[in-house]
Amino acid sequence: MSRIPVAILGATGMVGQRLIQRLSGHPWFQVAAVAASSRSVGRPYGEVVPWRLPGTACDDRVARMDVLPCEPGRMPRGLRVVLSALGGPEAGEIEGRFQSSGFAVISNASAWRDDPLVPLLVPEVNPEHVALVQKQPGLGYIVTNPNCCVVPLVIALAPLHREMGIQALVVSTYQAVSGAGYPGESAWDMLGNVHPHPGDEELKVQTEPLKILGATSRPADFPVSARCVRVPVVDGHLISVQVKLRGHPSPEAVAALLESSYGDLPTLPSTPRPLLLLTRQRDRPAPRFDADSGNGMAVTVGRIECCPVMGIKLFCLAHNTIRGAAGAAIANLELLRSKGLLP
Amino acid sequence: MSRIPVAILGATGMVGQRLIQRLSGHPWFQVAAVAASSRSVGRPYGEVVPWRLPGTACDDRVARMDVLPCEPGRMPRGLRVVLSALGGPEAGEIEGRFQSSGFAVISNASAWRDDPLVPLLVPEVNPEHVALVQKQPGLGYIVTNPNCCVVPLVIALAPLHREMGIQALVVSTYQAVSGAGYPGESAWDMLGNVHPHPGDEELKVQTEPLKILGATSRPADFPVSARCVRVPVVDGHLISVQVKLRGHPSPEAVAALLESSYGDLPTLPSTPRPLLLLTRQRDRPAPRFDADSGNGMAVTVGRIECCPVMGIKLFCLAHNTIRGAAGAAIANLELLRSKGLLP
Amino acid sequence: MSRIPVAILGATGMVGQRLIQRLSGHPWFQVAAVAASSRSVGRPYGEVVPWRLPGTACDDRVARMDVLPCEPGRMPRGLRVVLSALGGPEAGEIEGRFQSSGFAVISNASAWRDDPLVPLLVPEVNPEHVALVQKQPGLGYIVTNPNCCVVPLVIALAPLHREMGIQALVVSTYQAVSGAGYPGESAWDMLGNVHPHPGDEELKVQTEPLKILGATSRPADFPVSARCVRVPVVDGHLISVQVKLRGHPSPEAVAALLESSYGDLPTLPSTPRPLLLLTRQRDRPAPRFDADSGNGMAVTVGRIECCPVMGIKLFCLAHNTIRGAAGAAIANLELLRSKGLLP
Amino acid sequence: MSRIPVAILGATGMVGQRLIQRLSGHPWFQVAAVAASSRSVGRPYGEVVPWRLPGTACDDRVARMDVLPCEPGRMPRGLRVVLSALGGPEAGEIEGRFQSSGFAVISNASAWRDDPLVPLLVPEVNPEHVALVQKQPGLGYIVTNPNCCVVPLVIALAPLHREMGIQALVVSTYQAVSGAGYPGESAWDMLGNVHPHPGDEELKVQTEPLKILGATSRPADFPVSARCVRVPVVDGHLISVQVKLRGHPSPEAVAALLESSYGDLPTLPSTPRPLLLLTRQRDRPAPRFDADSGNGMAVTVGRIECCPVMGIKLFCLAHNTIRGAAGAAIANLELLRSKGLLP
Repeated sequence: MSRIPVAILGATGMVGQRLIQRLSGHPWFQVAAVAASSRSVGRPYGEVVPWRLPGTACDDRVARMDVLPCEPGRMPRGLRVVLSALGGPEAGEIEGRFQSSGFAVISNASAWRDDPLVPLLVPEVNPEHVALVQKQPGLGYIVTNPNCCVVPLVIALAPLHREMGIQALVVSTYQAVSGAGYPGESAWDMLGNVHPHPGDEELKVQTEPLKILGATSRPADFPVSARCVRVPVVDGHLISVQVKLRGHPSPEAVAALLESSYGDLPTLPSTPRPLLLLTRQRDRPAPRFDADSGNGMAVTVGRIECCPVMGIKLFCLAHNTIRGAAGAAIANLELLRSKGLLP
Repeated sequence: MSRIPVAILGATGMVGQRLIQRLSGHPWFQVAAVAASSRSVGRPYGEVVPWRLPGTACDDRVARMDVLPCEPGRMPRGLRVVLSALGGPEAGEIEGRFQSSGFAVISNASAWRDDPLVPLLVPEVNPEHVALVQKQPGLGYIVTNPNCCVVPLVIALAPLHREMGIQALVVSTYQAVSGAGYPGESAWDMLGNVHPHPGDEELKVQTEPLKILGATSRPADFPVSARCVRVPVVDGHLISVQVKLRGHPSPEAVAALLESSYGDLPTLPSTPRPLLLLTRQRDRPAPRFDADSGNGMAVTVGRIECCPVMGIKLFCLAHNTIRGAAGAAIANLELLRSKGLLP
Repeated sequence: MSRIPVAILGATGMVGQRLIQRLSGHPWFQVAAVAASSRSVGRPYGEVVPWRLPGTACDDRVARMDVLPCEPGRMPRGLRVVLSALGGPEAGEIEGRFQSSGFAVISNASAWRDDPLVPLLVPEVNPEHVALVQKQPGLGYIVTNPNCCVVPLVIALAPLHREMGIQALVVSTYQAVSGAGYPGESAWDMLGNVHPHPGDEELKVQTEPLKILGATSRPADFPVSARCVRVPVVDGHLISVQVKLRGHPSPEAVAALLESSYGDLPTLPSTPRPLLLLTRQRDRPAPRFDADSGNGMAVTVGRIECCPVMGIKLFCLAHNTIRGAAGAAIANLELLRSKGLLP
Repeated sequence: MSRIPVAILGATGMVGQRLIQRLSGHPWFQVAAVAASSRSVGRPYGEVVPWRLPGTACDDRVARMDVLPCEPGRMPRGLRVVLSALGGPEAGEIEGRFQSSGFAVISNASAWRDDPLVPLLVPEVNPEHVALVQKQPGLGYIVTNPNCCVVPLVIALAPLHREMGIQALVVSTYQAVSGAGYPGESAWDMLGNVHPHPGDEELKVQTEPLKILGATSRPADFPVSARCVRVPVVDGHLISVQVKLRGHPSPEAVAALLESSYGDLPTLPSTPRPLLLLTRQRDRPAPRFDADSGNGMAVTVGRIECCPVMGIKLFCLAHNTIRGAAGAAIANLELLRSKGLLP
């Protein structure tokens, strides 16, 4: 069986590299084109990309591809699916052009996440939201995955919200530098240092979970407070959670619920088994030890304890550029294909 | 005028070294003896201490002192004041022996902090608690300073509690490795990694602020939830705070109150001016840049903003082994002398 | 075909964990017993090991094994092969007891490396040295792998010595903290810091290459100067080499020789292809990016350039606890089995 | 006595900030103007500078100055001295314009270091080279300080070269990230990583010592081989040295010579006493512990030992942006004033 060709938009950045790395050898998909900004266009990908993913060289076949511009009309004939790792202000506009030209756009960018007709999708949490794509105007559609902090958060919280109901949520993050892309943070700023995230990360963490945990037509409704801090970690976001749940369940009840969840996941190539790992060690989860679990796609939860203010506190952790970005987009792509929704 | 002789208990550890470093050249006090565990006793301090404070060698005069055992009867004649940097299970018992032998014990250890007759003291916050020493049975007394996270927390929160009233408090920490002493954390665990604090740190952060912010006879009464996480930072604890205040003041009102506080501090040698620095930069405070402010004794506060769950959120930061430990003890010692309470 | 049972001595340490991790699923061998110091004996391995290898949990089957003492008489019946990750002063004596009791001892420890009848073995470099085992007195034998810095060094230098002849060698290392075991270095010492290696590492780097690059009966003879420095890197030793070669070859000639070497390696399960990677990037090799190459078993060489003092300078790099320790021992074990030398 | 006004060229960068920090309160000089690239010109320095030096805020008086363009005609009336922290390709041209306009240019840039009429000056090593300024054509003159690695190197080696004679030199560096300026290195590249310096640093380290250690009219003549590697250290370059000295002196003789050197230094405000610290600890010097010695102006030397290839090996270390850059320039400025050479 031949594999479905896909193009990578924003292919030279950190998430673009991860997409190429993880699609190498994928059973269903194959990278058929790489596109990036104008300063890379026309040159072989292997020459322009500052490839520096640990332990793997860039796929030779992709390295030889000439970089294309991010324009629908320049995609190879027959290619109808693009994975977008675009950043910056023009991401939304470019993705919109691909959508209206009939492409399926699976995006890691934030531009379209708030649009009520665009699914903000985590296949293990809200696969039913994928139905939104059929309501989008235009020939194609856009599907997005959430911010890298939000993925582990909603995977840890979805069973609690479904069974118990979240009434309020406080989140503090310990975020890795890879989340800032490349070159991203300055070494001078990050060596032996941490600092408050200066961007709009906190706003994303406060709004995206509500869309994901809500119904297709109506977001969930509870207050969320987020504090986002960058720490000198390479990969892996640790998230501290204080949550107020209806009925004031005990930590043991919360742990039992999480342990019994996600047993009947859809069979997608990148779904890890188990999806959610519960650790009993008091100093875990920790990014360097746990971020690669489940081939970078698992979420680790630990220290589920009583919180004197909110009721329950816990930590959750996932690999931010895999589970929280490139792997999230690929999982969405797999879901779309399994539902027969690819063009 | 001759300087008052003091002894350092637990002199070889991280906090002991900082005490010696910061008493070098102090206008009122002079290190006259160093005491440590039995394996160091009888040898010159300079030979047994793994001195490694950045940029300063150990004071020559102290380096030549023979290390004494931590016993009241072995202190030099005329010395009546000990600063304790002891750790471990026996700290409380040793301090108790010094107290009952008539010494003033200024302690950084946690053993006696909960005792209702022992002041848990931050000179700029609750100097009136020092009166408790006169109620203690025995010839001497014990005065303690709080946990290294609690010092910046109560300095940032005391004006808010006094003027507005705290109703609930959520705290998340980003703690430096020096807080674990030496050798402390393993490099393997901390390089490019963070991990939940496995000890009873969270309990301390949940209880100590109530004693400090309360009256001498009755602790303050509001729920506190703490999450404590170690990060790969050398010195300086960053504390994220979400706080519910009576009357729901705006961030601007909170900032204005903090800016106008601490203007009339008592004149002690180690009190920084200003004590509380308010930063407007979105990615500050940050430990490597701000921990040394005010010679390591200032507290930096930033990002005072609306919190959708608790009302107000902010960051505060201080140097954990200076403002949060050695400098805190020396400030207490200075307060005692200024009140005429030293034996 | 059933797999050959092996025991791990020193199983709870950093290298012991790596041995267990890498033997999981090995086509020829299976961990059948784990042994460690007396404080772990009798308890399940999973409970006593501070397992913290990134991304992998300890093999369940091994986690359930009770830890045995490091005594030949306590090994399971039929088990004749031990891999030793022992450290400390007693390693040599314990290994000697296993050897004289008829075991094949494949050791990562340094105790026996200097013994003229004990091969110091890198399968891709001096496989013929394995013949020494038949000259050892006693029922069994000992085979050792070199110091973690020496493995990449001799893999990079062996073709040059064979074809051109090394006349003098200067080595400076940039060594990862995992080389110190667990807990190893203090985080306080290593965060944002580097420091000269205080042990006898430099002596090992100065002597071991001579034994490996020499004939079975006579070490190579050229002066070696080593400087060993610990840097805040998790895994992967970068080695800077200045080398004086007979005939003063150009950098291009050296690169061409290295590129054409190692094409006809013996077919062992853990041999990477290619063994030696030549990078053209000016800021490579770099440990975080290159140490995992070839599943942690490849050596990366770069920046082959003119040296005004010695003639040629270059960098080489390998994963220190895999290629330089656990993987090195397993490769030796594979070589022994392929030669029919296992008991 | 009024202080001599100076301007800082390239004032917003890492070295520019250090110049301003260290001239605050200087007994002889006062910052009277700050100049930078066109995108900062006309705005208050405090608004455009990404100030982030640990523990100190920017001097208020300087923060309020409007940034000037780097043009001689725009300097304040009466100001005749500029300190240049310029980088990039245009540094040499700008400095040349100031020189021909009659300014004394004390430069940290590399553009003019090779010019035979421009002194490459370290006041404690080759103060007599300052006489070159009188041979320069044009109204003013340029004085330069060396590369940040070269300063500690020549301070450690000058006594050896003078008394014994250097025959060959091998240098390996462990360089801090601050040497790359701000933003400089990417955090992704440097966290838990080291990498070969990709620029022309090695060339500078190979040539600059010869000019400094030579006579005014003729550089010293011995081969130098340099390997330069960036490590995840904030401040402080550790330099490993293997050196061949005439007469093959013992390590003890070298140590004795270094200990007795630099006793009669000229009395300049920034000269530390002692200038050269000899450590006996086996794991020192180490950047985080030793770079700040002597207020950042001392050089620490340790591990003077036999080298089997070159004769002697040792480590030296200094703070790269103070002793190796801003402090070096200020020391040169002080020397010029003490010699009566300022315009």
